[in-house]
Amino acid sequence: MIRAIQRIAGRPKDRRLALPIGDDAAAFRTRPGCLILVSTDALVEGIHFDLTYCSAEDVGWKALAVNLSDIAAMGGTPLYVTTSIALPREGAADFVSRFYRGLRAIAREHAVTLIGGDTCRSPQGFFLDVTIIGEVKPTHMLTRRGAKPGDLLYVTGELGGSSIGLELLSRSRKPVPRSAAIRRHLRPQPRCAAGRFLAERKLASAMIDLSDGLSTDLGRLCEQSGVGALVETSQLPLAKIPDRQRRLLPNALLHYALNGGEDYELLFAVPQHLSKRVPRQIDGLPLHRIGRITRPSGIWLLDGQRKHRLRPGGFDHFA
Amino acid sequence: MIRAIQRIAGRPKDRRLALPIGDDAAAFRTRPGCLILVSTDALVEGIHFDLTYCSAEDVGWKALAVNLSDIAAMGGTPLYVTTSIALPREGAADFVSRFYRGLRAIAREHAVTLIGGDTCRSPQGFFLDVTIIGEVKPTHMLTRRGAKPGDLLYVTGELGGSSIGLELLSRSRKPVPRSAAIRRHLRPQPRCAAGRFLAERKLASAMIDLSDGLSTDLGRLCEQSGVGALVETSQLPLAKIPDRQRRLLPNALLHYALNGGEDYELLFAVPQHLSKRVPRQIDGLPLHRIGRITRPSGIWLLDGQRKHRLRPGGFDHFA
Repeated sequence: MIRAIQRIAGRPKDRRLALPIGDDAAAFRTRPGCLILVSTDALVEGIHFDLTYCSAEDVGWKALAVNLSDIAAMGGTPLYVTTSIALPREGAADFVSRFYRGLRAIAREHAVTLIGGDTCRSPQGFFLDVTIIGEVKPTHMLTRRGAKPGDLLYVTGELGGSSIGLELLSRSRKPVPRSAAIRRHLRPQPRCAAGRFLAERKLASAMIDLSDGLSTDLGRLCEQSGVGALVETSQLPLAKIPDRQRRLLPNALLHYALNGGEDYELLFAVPQHLSKRVPRQIDGLPLHRIGRITRPSGIWLLDGQRKHRLRPGGFDHFA
Repeated sequence: MIRAIQRIAGRPKDRRLALPIGDDAAAFRTRPGCLILVSTDALVEGIHFDLTYCSAEDVGWKALAVNLSDIAAMGGTPLYVTTSIALPREGAADFVSRFYRGLRAIAREHAVTLIGGDTCRSPQGFFLDVTIIGEVKPTHMLTRRGAKPGDLLYVTGELGGSSIGLELLSRSRKPVPRSAAIRRHLRPQPRCAAGRFLAERKLASAMIDLSDGLSTDLGRLCEQSGVGALVETSQLPLAKIPDRQRRLLPNALLHYALNGGEDYELLFAVPQHLSKRVPRQIDGLPLHRIGRITRPSGIWLLDGQRKHRLRPGGFDHFA
């Protein structure tokens, strides 16, 4: 099994890698002065994915994408990845090779090397865990702390597309064509380049990736920074959904933008005096100002003239 | 849930830790010139552990122990650990706090800090994945490659105890007193100090930890080194089992020593001219010479005057 993984993972050309996959541990050289970043995320069949409407390749892609997004949110550069897979007996070999094909596709896009892969049996269902290792200069690192009252609040890309894609997938019993929203859900694009751009130019005071929905993740950023926030409904970059798909949705687009999870866009705060230096887009990815950081008085949504309290309504991994 | 983990994990006093658990990723400083080691291992309920005869604390201990053992086998020093847990709804909170109590106990013994912990739901059964990060000087690192014909073969501690413990646990339907063998199975002791001792003195040419049984893991070391081996039955340090327990076992002690998994002892090769410098024990842990490395002509067991081929008979994670 390890050999199959080695084959699929390809021979790493990385000169920093002192010992590749296949020994008791992998070993790599560090870059002087850089911090090592580590994050881990699991994907569980029946909780995070459903093989009736996504492929094993999609699962492999997404398992790495969600971890890359964590490194993006730190302003870091991803380097290495380890995977751990528990598989039921049925269809295991086919799943593994297709899973790694999907993982390898996104790993190549981000120049990430697979350096560890534990595989074992599961009595029932697929369980996948991915750990990502990256690096960042200490002066570039962005955390959830650091946002100050008066800072402006931005997001990359658009919001709500992934949860709309999930809604469309789960409402249709038959295979559906892969619309943009469905692709967003199944093949999220982590914003590593944008994260590094902001970090290297020291434009942001705090950053988080939107994994559980704006209302939930903004709450986390505000809590860690000890601040409040005001979001303007009119400024939110709602996902562009064709009318024929929109009619299938039980909720308004605003609902998905505020509470839908798994967009994997970046949410960041920018000190006012730096806001002129924030570009309209980074490598074609638009940035939108959606509000501002306030004193610690809760998180509010400005909807025309009305102000509502914005409570976490996103995905709770343990609900 | 993350807060509960932070509480249980304790406040890290580690000055190398630039950002502890609780952000998108954790960050730590590297030591100039050291390699970073990474390894990952999963534990699945019903495959690797059975909560009818082990406690959640045991699972937490073992989940980290098996990963520490991988760092020991490289001659490295463990530094940080991340955990990923998928839990069924029932008993989740209680399991989590007890799991981390067990993990924390062994983490303290090895001065390892928890820097990441993803928790999510599982439709059925507990799934745990642990990733360990360590470091080693490049000139000290020990791999599975490097053993040469003529090298002497050693193991730490004794062999077979863990699988005997498992046998005793699974044969008894009622709770059994924790004999030495059962403790070996439930609370294995990774040989980090011995691994570092051998690495720093450059005594070993190759090393592996015994996770899947001597016959399997010796096969891996020989394959990676491109050599064969001869093991002398009379030299094997069989587990010391009281007679009353021995009578319960369906196999001879030799069978467990050769094929029993999860001993987490170290198996290593030593060039002949260095063998005089190998001590009898390291910090009270005995070392035993069990055979020698040969040309690549397979792995053989010398049992008195008879020579048998020793085929991998250990635990296959995918059997």
